[in-house]
Amino acid sequence: MVIGAGFIGIEMSDELKKTGKNVTLIELQANVLPLAFDPDVASEAEIILKERGIKVLTGHGVQEIVGEECVEAIKIVRGDKLETLKADAVILSMGYEPSVDLARDLENIAFNRDGFIKVDEYMRTDHADVFAVGDCAEKRDFFTRKRSKAMLASIACAEARVAGMNLYKLSTLKTIGGTIAIFSTALNGTGFGAAGLTETVARKEGFDIIVGKFEGVDRHPGMLNNPHKQIVKLIAGRENGIILGGEVMGGSSAGELINIVGLIIQNRMNVNMLMTAQIGTHPMLTASPAAYPLIKAAEVIAKEFWNN
Amino acid sequence: MVIGAGFIGIEMSDELKKTGKNVTLIELQANVLPLAFDPDVASEAEIILKERGIKVLTGHGVQEIVGEECVEAIKIVRGDKLETLKADAVILSMGYEPSVDLARDLENIAFNRDGFIKVDEYMRTDHADVFAVGDCAEKRDFFTRKRSKAMLASIACAEARVAGMNLYKLSTLKTIGGTIAIFSTALNGTGFGAAGLTETVARKEGFDIIVGKFEGVDRHPGMLNNPHKQIVKLIAGRENGIILGGEVMGGSSAGELINIVGLIIQNRMNVNMLMTAQIGTHPMLTASPAAYPLIKAAEVIAKEFWNN
Repeated sequence: MVIGAGFIGIEMSDELKKTGKNVTLIELQANVLPLAFDPDVASEAEIILKERGIKVLTGHGVQEIVGEECVEAIKIVRGDKLETLKADAVILSMGYEPSVDLARDLENIAFNRDGFIKVDEYMRTDHADVFAVGDCAEKRDFFTRKRSKAMLASIACAEARVAGMNLYKLSTLKTIGGTIAIFSTALNGTGFGAAGLTETVARKEGFDIIVGKFEGVDRHPGMLNNPHKQIVKLIAGRENGIILGGEVMGGSSAGELINIVGLIIQNRMNVNMLMTAQIGTHPMLTASPAAYPLIKAAEVIAKEFWNN
Repeated sequence: MVIGAGFIGIEMSDELKKTGKNVTLIELQANVLPLAFDPDVASEAEIILKERGIKVLTGHGVQEIVGEECVEAIKIVRGDKLETLKADAVILSMGYEPSVDLARDLENIAFNRDGFIKVDEYMRTDHADVFAVGDCAEKRDFFTRKRSKAMLASIACAEARVAGMNLYKLSTLKTIGGTIAIFSTALNGTGFGAAGLTETVARKEGFDIIVGKFEGVDRHPGMLNNPHKQIVKLIAGRENGIILGGEVMGGSSAGELINIVGLIIQNRMNVNMLMTAQIGTHPMLTASPAAYPLIKAAEVIAKEFWNN
């Protein structure tokens, strides 16, 4: 029984299933990976989980974990409907909090409302000579400028590099201008990645956006080279075509493909720049140059962009 | 017998070997892939070819192909030493020329000294209303501005997009500012990629450069996740740290990894921007966030850059 279908929850479910366990994954939101992905891309991950034999119960809340000495069952609820499921063990993967005990012992350290240590773009805390980086340090979203709760090793490493480069003298260049959470995960050979804003978040935050999506394969010609389905979804501002976010699904190259999207965002590239961008392709390594999903998704956006 | 160890030559050799043929690959230059890669990275490809059982003879010229009705032998030469090798067939993969017959029938079409159709940055020829894209169309190198002879499907597609976007009215934005040849290839599961200037070409063209190279693995932790060795080599201008080129070796994600380098070049990112760049990582899909070879190679450059 795994509660919470974020990255930890789905990866844990997948690994447990590999060992032969019966696994049920319970998620309160309407789909798995509800924070990092839009429902249309997340549903692809849900299909894989189900194909692997994992029971996925989205839209279900957990009311109670039942048992005295050890777990016996959990009570889940959907609307008015209460159900009791037998369980031998429960894994809670429902969220995380920054670990800031070390900082609490220091004077003059400020924390933000989410409990993260407040830092500036050089990763300096309010305490002179103390820097904070990683999961404990405050992050601001690259676009919305809101506080972000993303906790990723890759973000921690980027922050650590910035802190290191500003330890002895400040640099006006080497700063974190805002966090672009770049996620990736893999399920049974299928890679998923997300960077920047999802369509859901972008709309919620008030951006007027255009969405482009393209589905292809990650080899060419597909019938020869054992291809994997590849999906790229891009989110662009309607005003200027600047890419605000992207989601990808594909084979093992999906991890680097989402890093391409991450760089596109960091360079504030717009859809025109992307349409004229030069890429390299090879039958055994990438999609076809004429159907490279990243560029094709940009074309879908451009079509709507130019029609306005 | 394959003459010429560029991409066509090495891929053809590899495919022929798969069918059980005895294959000898002959190359005049000192190493395989002599134009796209520096010797240090190309030597990794040569090792794979040799491990596959292909006989690789670099530094050898071909003096004569012997045979009446069909090929019987070829005479190869290295310095003063002439050798005759028996051969059943010879594949020539020693170069290519633009195919421009169609254009020759038109009036007012100009060609450059290499035989390519002259085009401007909108892909227009000198003939009103005629655009040219792809292998037949003139290209200029992104950095050196010299005529480039790169012929790649991916370049053709980028040019076609630019031509399409300028067919009815010219855009000041949607142009080809210069060709970054982005190559990739795969040999027995190992991917190789190159983008922009090699160290050899950059030095020859007169750039004062710093080179950074890092070797890691494309999964983490490596011992768990069936990793592939990954090498990233970056070439940066000493004056400003701007990335001029890169070469990568790795597993199947190498094709997208070199596209990251391609975007870094197109955005004229410098080593400082790269050092603070945010990337995403996952154990099954990428190198570790603390040892991501692209950033580590940038660190090697930065170390020398800051010391000057």
